[in-house]
Amino acid sequence: MRIAVLGAGANGSVFGGFLAKAGHEVSLLGRKKHMDAVKKGGLRIEGIWGEHLISHIKTADDESLLQPGYDLILITVKSYDTESMAPLAAKLLGKQGLVVSLQNGLGNEEILAREIGGEKCALGRVIFGAEVTAPGRVKVTVCADDVVLGPIKGDYPGECLKRIEKAASLINEAGIPCRYSGEVHKYIWAKVLYNCALNPLGALLGVNYGTLGDSPYARKIMDQMVREIFAVAEALGVELFWSRAEDYLREFYGNLLPPTKDHRPSMLQDIERGRRTEIDYLNGKIVEYGRGAGVDTPVNCCIADLVRFLEEKNLKNR
Amino acid sequence: MRIAVLGAGANGSVFGGFLAKAGHEVSLLGRKKHMDAVKKGGLRIEGIWGEHLISHIKTADDESLLQPGYDLILITVKSYDTESMAPLAAKLLGKQGLVVSLQNGLGNEEILAREIGGEKCALGRVIFGAEVTAPGRVKVTVCADDVVLGPIKGDYPGECLKRIEKAASLINEAGIPCRYSGEVHKYIWAKVLYNCALNPLGALLGVNYGTLGDSPYARKIMDQMVREIFAVAEALGVELFWSRAEDYLREFYGNLLPPTKDHRPSMLQDIERGRRTEIDYLNGKIVEYGRGAGVDTPVNCCIADLVRFLEEKNLKNR
Repeated sequence: MRIAVLGAGANGSVFGGFLAKAGHEVSLLGRKKHMDAVKKGGLRIEGIWGEHLISHIKTADDESLLQPGYDLILITVKSYDTESMAPLAAKLLGKQGLVVSLQNGLGNEEILAREIGGEKCALGRVIFGAEVTAPGRVKVTVCADDVVLGPIKGDYPGECLKRIEKAASLINEAGIPCRYSGEVHKYIWAKVLYNCALNPLGALLGVNYGTLGDSPYARKIMDQMVREIFAVAEALGVELFWSRAEDYLREFYGNLLPPTKDHRPSMLQDIERGRRTEIDYLNGKIVEYGRGAGVDTPVNCCIADLVRFLEEKNLKNR
Repeated sequence: MRIAVLGAGANGSVFGGFLAKAGHEVSLLGRKKHMDAVKKGGLRIEGIWGEHLISHIKTADDESLLQPGYDLILITVKSYDTESMAPLAAKLLGKQGLVVSLQNGLGNEEILAREIGGEKCALGRVIFGAEVTAPGRVKVTVCADDVVLGPIKGDYPGECLKRIEKAASLINEAGIPCRYSGEVHKYIWAKVLYNCALNPLGALLGVNYGTLGDSPYARKIMDQMVREIFAVAEALGVELFWSRAEDYLREFYGNLLPPTKDHRPSMLQDIERGRRTEIDYLNGKIVEYGRGAGVDTPVNCCIADLVRFLEEKNLKNR
């Protein structure tokens, strides 16, 4: 299969690398420095899924270098770049092809549906971690669960769903644990709940997740954010794995947070490095959805604006 | 007159110093280091109200050194110490005496009324700034308006109000601009509005007041906090100088904030030095009043909890 990875950062390179290793024709679109290193010395993958050197992989640091007609296009850019990347995916996609968003947060599906057509797309929930340790080199550091792939809407024709199932098998057989699910939204919202509660608050206060869980003050704020997100989900008719916020909070403090207590928020790193964050696609998107549905989300709004303040301050100072 | 100043930090020393200079018998209760220096070399006051050396002033670093029967007791401790200071004031107060709270925030009046009796007390709004530059030495740095003194309730007997008017004259004649007002609550709430909007947010984000005013994100948060405070005031039946939040916000951004744009929040200094802040008597008290009156105050609550998180973190690290 001909596969393109749009946004070959850490995660994108891992997907592309394993798929190329499995024999597919893979093209990576990424930053010049990383692409040049891959072109010259191949892509090195290390970490929990073993050590690999993939040399037969195409690279592009400019979209004009990519030839249309891909069977599978993986979108792995940050969510704030989906708007600019979706039209390119539409242009590059082959007739029977599939575009898969393997991104964080909410709101990507609306852009993909509009620019490409929902039936030609799939959403993925990615919950492994990777980092670019040097140009041409990535490391898989942690994996909490399979990648989960599913359709934007469940009532698409059977052939659409089949295409997504096939893509999930393809990725799984390439060595990245992956499965199909008809309820991928539940997985995505579960990750959004976790991320909205911990990531911005940890970034604001400059602490790891465990420190947030240990503080009654941080808990009060996280409780409120989670309750607001449940209210928004309910108003939108989005089903979650938990029927009430209190059920999620019990699971969150009891089982989800403790194993990640030493985790330093990625948003804190973004802010410290003067980079843009994905706040608009996490708490910011909750506020936006809430506004549309008539649900008040004052705490998510406040936290999102605090992060945006720091983001803008550090972008300016860069 | 026999006057005691309970809490002779920067502001308390300025009040005590000028009153002693005017010929009154003044006792300061304060920290040992500062008191020892005053006892040995007198109290030096410098800054915008001139240079003065006051040597005829009594000092005490322990409450047992104070003799009951004061005509005027000024309470100038931080609001979190009012609870422990009020019974002492009650014990030390002479028969026809007056206790004046010259403190920040909300909630002091309730403690004074309970421990001393509202008719024997007055509230003050202090809006000059001073700092202890060295033990025994204080500097008056800025003065935005007169000290305003008034009764906790307007319907007290005339002799009570007279006593407060007399205290206001006394302070004014001693060299600290001061006037009586029957609506001191309006002045106090005006200062609370300004402080609740700027002080904790500047502390959280580590910036001066002007930077907050320049950011659309900080403004959104301040707007929300001010609207919540107006809703709480209305529910409590507290009259403000402005009838609507939007009127205050126009005045706030247009006239009140700009002259103080370079001001670094005192709460930021407290947090940086691992000291306790007055957050419970500013936004925290708004939340408490709101809860009692059935008014939701999510943004003040969130901001207060964020400050409390940093406060506790830094107190621990001290």
